[in-house]
Amino acid sequence: MPVTAEIITIGSEILTGLTVNTNAAFIGERLTSVGVDVRAVAAVDDNESDIRKAVDTALERAGLVVCTGGLGPTKDDVTKKAVAACFGRRLVLLPEAMERIEAAFRAMGRDMAPANRLQALIPEGAEPVPNRVGQAPGFILSRGGRELIVLPGVPSEMRAMMDETVVPRLKAAAGTASAVLALRTSGLPESDVGRKLEDFPSLFPDVRVGFYPDSTGVTVRLMTFGSSAEACENRVRRAGETAADRLGRAVYGTGSDSLESVIRRVLTESGRTLAVAESCTGGLISHRITNVPGSSAYFLRGIVAYHNDAKTGLLGVPKSLVEKHGAVSAECAAAMAEGVRSSAGTDFGLSATGIAGPSGGSAEKPVGLVFIGCADASGTVTEKHRFLRDRLWNKERSATAALDLLRRRLRGFI
Amino acid sequence: MPVTAEIITIGSEILTGLTVNTNAAFIGERLTSVGVDVRAVAAVDDNESDIRKAVDTALERAGLVVCTGGLGPTKDDVTKKAVAACFGRRLVLLPEAMERIEAAFRAMGRDMAPANRLQALIPEGAEPVPNRVGQAPGFILSRGGRELIVLPGVPSEMRAMMDETVVPRLKAAAGTASAVLALRTSGLPESDVGRKLEDFPSLFPDVRVGFYPDSTGVTVRLMTFGSSAEACENRVRRAGETAADRLGRAVYGTGSDSLESVIRRVLTESGRTLAVAESCTGGLISHRITNVPGSSAYFLRGIVAYHNDAKTGLLGVPKSLVEKHGAVSAECAAAMAEGVRSSAGTDFGLSATGIAGPSGGSAEKPVGLVFIGCADASGTVTEKHRFLRDRLWNKERSATAALDLLRRRLRGFI
Repeated sequence: MPVTAEIITIGSEILTGLTVNTNAAFIGERLTSVGVDVRAVAAVDDNESDIRKAVDTALERAGLVVCTGGLGPTKDDVTKKAVAACFGRRLVLLPEAMERIEAAFRAMGRDMAPANRLQALIPEGAEPVPNRVGQAPGFILSRGGRELIVLPGVPSEMRAMMDETVVPRLKAAAGTASAVLALRTSGLPESDVGRKLEDFPSLFPDVRVGFYPDSTGVTVRLMTFGSSAEACENRVRRAGETAADRLGRAVYGTGSDSLESVIRRVLTESGRTLAVAESCTGGLISHRITNVPGSSAYFLRGIVAYHNDAKTGLLGVPKSLVEKHGAVSAECAAAMAEGVRSSAGTDFGLSATGIAGPSGGSAEKPVGLVFIGCADASGTVTEKHRFLRDRLWNKERSATAALDLLRRRLRGFI
Repeated sequence: MPVTAEIITIGSEILTGLTVNTNAAFIGERLTSVGVDVRAVAAVDDNESDIRKAVDTALERAGLVVCTGGLGPTKDDVTKKAVAACFGRRLVLLPEAMERIEAAFRAMGRDMAPANRLQALIPEGAEPVPNRVGQAPGFILSRGGRELIVLPGVPSEMRAMMDETVVPRLKAAAGTASAVLALRTSGLPESDVGRKLEDFPSLFPDVRVGFYPDSTGVTVRLMTFGSSAEACENRVRRAGETAADRLGRAVYGTGSDSLESVIRRVLTESGRTLAVAESCTGGLISHRITNVPGSSAYFLRGIVAYHNDAKTGLLGVPKSLVEKHGAVSAECAAAMAEGVRSSAGTDFGLSATGIAGPSGGSAEKPVGLVFIGCADASGTVTEKHRFLRDRLWNKERSATAALDLLRRRLRGFI
């Protein structure tokens, strides 16, 4: 039997819909990836009684409760007060945390507001969880073999603490063995991915299969539980090999791979360079590429050619081409990719041009119509796509399509 | 006293973290906007016993429970089974829903799978909630003056049903009036915003104040409940005026305003144009500007000058300047803003250059150091910032700082 867990996120911004609960999604993903069975997520207001009730209820049902939020300087230490009360502890100062806070204010050259001192308090006897990214430390408390892990609500801090302390600890503690394999795919709709693996429940009865679509593609998650880690690993590996075989070139990576990180790996290994020319994606392709640390080694420049003057002036797209085929055309996508490649002197040029919407569409060139292009020494390839939703979705899907075109080009698939 | 509500979202994709719970955020925002006091959000797996427990628990605590998910043809009708069991009802066919489903399949020219018939079932005696977007109807059940509203999990369907049926119904039913005002600020840390309004609980005892920080700034939300709508409006307006006065030029808008949407308004009203030159933000500034529909009217081009050759070649930043001051300097930020403005022929040029990290920092120029610039006919202003977190956070905060610099320049504050 896997460990059962519940997640509690604290803060009225979740309840009033001002913030989407990405923290719960991240924690749920990480817990699931180490074989923990997440049974419930709760979001409660940052007041002491609601937090106490939520923590007590969760600890009655689950072996592990992960709680985030309400450790900041203005929100006061209400989460810590409530949790300390649940466990009948008082709050004590954690010296190493206090030093970090004072050092951070020195570095920013700002005076420390007294409230910031509260961030260094944790319940007496709790095991601290170091916060490498920010100021407020997390902590772990146990009761009757059940564990409560309390982390800050700031996503970058919580994520680092999950990956550096919580996940390794859970892996070590796990009584039952488990294995998880996530295959990242791009370019196939969820229904096609599902159909290709529809016989998996009978083919691999001990392996749970999940399909998770988003704007970057569909993730196939294979998970199994058992007594021996080796048996689990072998089981998901076999299922993974069959799945990868069925899904073919749509599979671009595993685990936490992204199209951007795969592109980084291939370009850095081969010492090649990239420039981007984008129109409808408005900078998103360059943004995603530069989200990867070290991208400055191969990404030299990006041009957001929103106005046609930028396409002709900066990218050397012939005015006549724009007049003949229009800015949203395979011809323009090709010329943009070639233009940015030659002006930047890079090995690859990547482009996207289309109609993000909501306006600007026509019967012949509707909203969501996008052309992408990739140019290198051996020539230029273009693709046509039609996305069917709102402006942001069309931008995201267009950027994904362009990054996947480059990925397939780098792999020699096209 | 306002009506209290709890939200339940059903589906394992939320628990395992590969779907972010945007439905709960949307419902929470809509309920809050009509003065409903959302006390908790719960996400549970799509199995009958978990759903029954969650619904029974929520109905014990709250006057209103809104439940989404598990009404589709593939997920079977497990949500309806569970809810019908909670209320001791059987499921009956809703003829008008059945007709809609059959008509949809006729329109697609496809045969209807028997499973689709399940979508037309609702608990006996329940009040149907029409689904204009999709097939599965929602429904409303009451018990002891408490209401349960069940909606599909498909966002486009759920959203339409909330706005067309649920929200108008709640407005009509609301015994209490309410008013909400959100002030959007940028440039002040949460602790400063909190300090400036720390006497609000005594100054405006009937107004709830909430602070919601993210990478775009801090949102101050003021909310009040009462018997008369007019009294509520006046109360939040007075509190809002005091808050705006205290926060001064940090306030850039209200409600759903963003820095990008405010920039759009000012530039379109005055018929002026913008070009962007960015380094450490890697395209994020252009991406955020182009997320706003209609941005093509004033945003002409963006340059992601990642390599110094792009700064000197595309933006005309003198090599000597880069050699003397470095690419991460106020001088380079100014030259980038002026360079992109003159080459694009726009009214404004906006720039950002810095060290996003994790590597590339030095004692003199540490990770998180960023210079931003804004150039127009009257001259160029630059600002220095130091952000202290990970790469993505530094990119987001740098983009926000640049957009806010332009906002303040457009408002004549600097």
